[in-house]
Amino acid sequence: MNAERGARNAEFGLGEVGTTGLPSDAVPRFLAFEGPEGGGKSTQVRAVAAALAAAGVPHTVTREPGGTVIGEQIRAVLLGIENRAMLPETEVLLLLAARAQHVAEVIAPALARGEVVLCDRFAGATFAYQGYGRGLPLAELRRLQRFAAGDLVPDLTLLFDLPAEIGLGRRHAAGEVNRLDAAGLAFHRAVRDGYLALAREEAARWCIIDASRPLDAVTTETLSIVGAWLAATRG
Amino acid sequence: MNAERGARNAEFGLGEVGTTGLPSDAVPRFLAFEGPEGGGKSTQVRAVAAALAAAGVPHTVTREPGGTVIGEQIRAVLLGIENRAMLPETEVLLLLAARAQHVAEVIAPALARGEVVLCDRFAGATFAYQGYGRGLPLAELRRLQRFAAGDLVPDLTLLFDLPAEIGLGRRHAAGEVNRLDAAGLAFHRAVRDGYLALAREEAARWCIIDASRPLDAVTTETLSIVGAWLAATRG
Repeated sequence: MNAERGARNAEFGLGEVGTTGLPSDAVPRFLAFEGPEGGGKSTQVRAVAAALAAAGVPHTVTREPGGTVIGEQIRAVLLGIENRAMLPETEVLLLLAARAQHVAEVIAPALARGEVVLCDRFAGATFAYQGYGRGLPLAELRRLQRFAAGDLVPDLTLLFDLPAEIGLGRRHAAGEVNRLDAAGLAFHRAVRDGYLALAREEAARWCIIDASRPLDAVTTETLSIVGAWLAATRG
Repeated sequence: MNAERGARNAEFGLGEVGTTGLPSDAVPRFLAFEGPEGGGKSTQVRAVAAALAAAGVPHTVTREPGGTVIGEQIRAVLLGIENRAMLPETEVLLLLAARAQHVAEVIAPALARGEVVLCDRFAGATFAYQGYGRGLPLAELRRLQRFAAGDLVPDLTLLFDLPAEIGLGRRHAAGEVNRLDAAGLAFHRAVRDGYLALAREEAARWCIIDASRPLDAVTTETLSIVGAWLAATRG
């Protein structure tokens, strides 16, 4: 193993699980990044993407709602602060409309090309926000999810968990408040509890990361988990 | 019956079915206007609304997709000629998102106030366009419809029926072509056949009007049917 490759692997914490470098074969790997507002998901997506790029691993970075031309139009409707009267049913149907397009145009083609896909929110967000948060029945949401996305599920979901108070405080401090952020503390607590319940139900496919810590600590753990998981699942 | 009222009733063809004027009591009456492109639905909605106004019948006029602030934003996404890559699943989820909002904000409150509601497209359009036209399973669409709109169904659906060639020809002649119009003749034929199948399945709640005739003849028949139906269902 040359020094450069060794440095890349160290960035992923691969020292413990493998020394032959990151995989570049064609096994589909779909990673979802989930969590309450202010948990730093998007920052972690960028950190993992940078590490994958440095290691020469083909990958696609995307986000929900959005990720396509149509999806970004839908995202604008969903997040518009003026659309406060939006029903939970409307909200989830819009999210799933964007998801159907996103899976067909972006995620499925990237997986078919053998790339790693990093997705900022996916089905977990629907179950946590619209199910646990808004109170829509989970069974109905799972059926809608299948209508929109078929049987596609993330191979690994990283949950950036932190108390709602801390997450919302970070968003407000950054001046980034959209319609969902403005929904109130009780809602965001229910979302967090929902995420934790989902992670416990599917422990083999979810990984909980304490996102209340300083950014550097969260990033280090994220890269370590992703690197170990990629090494363990390759081939 | 005074002369003015008599003239109003004549406008609705009420001479045959009643002579005591149009109803203004609180029985909900929900009318949907359906049909392929170019059948003149919107014109007939305006004609019926004008007749209701002249007769002093409280009513609300609305349309799908749209009818609300959020719904009109969704309508713009749906009809944008640049969004050609839209999947059938995305399309129907967007339509139902708009419908959920429309029912809650506009239709249900108007019915609760005892008004007649005239709606330019409703569930029939979903089954005809996305079911028969796009090939999505009708059972799934009916389930989505219930998720979005609950048990609300139109009391009467007027189907303005005409061959796809004639309807599309009228739209092109008027220079009004959107993404759905551009979908091709085979699609629009399937939609028309679907509408006719829906009308036959629920003959008690659907009425087929030959919209290939000149506008005046269509309007006369529409007003006659609506007037007779309102008279028959009042109280």
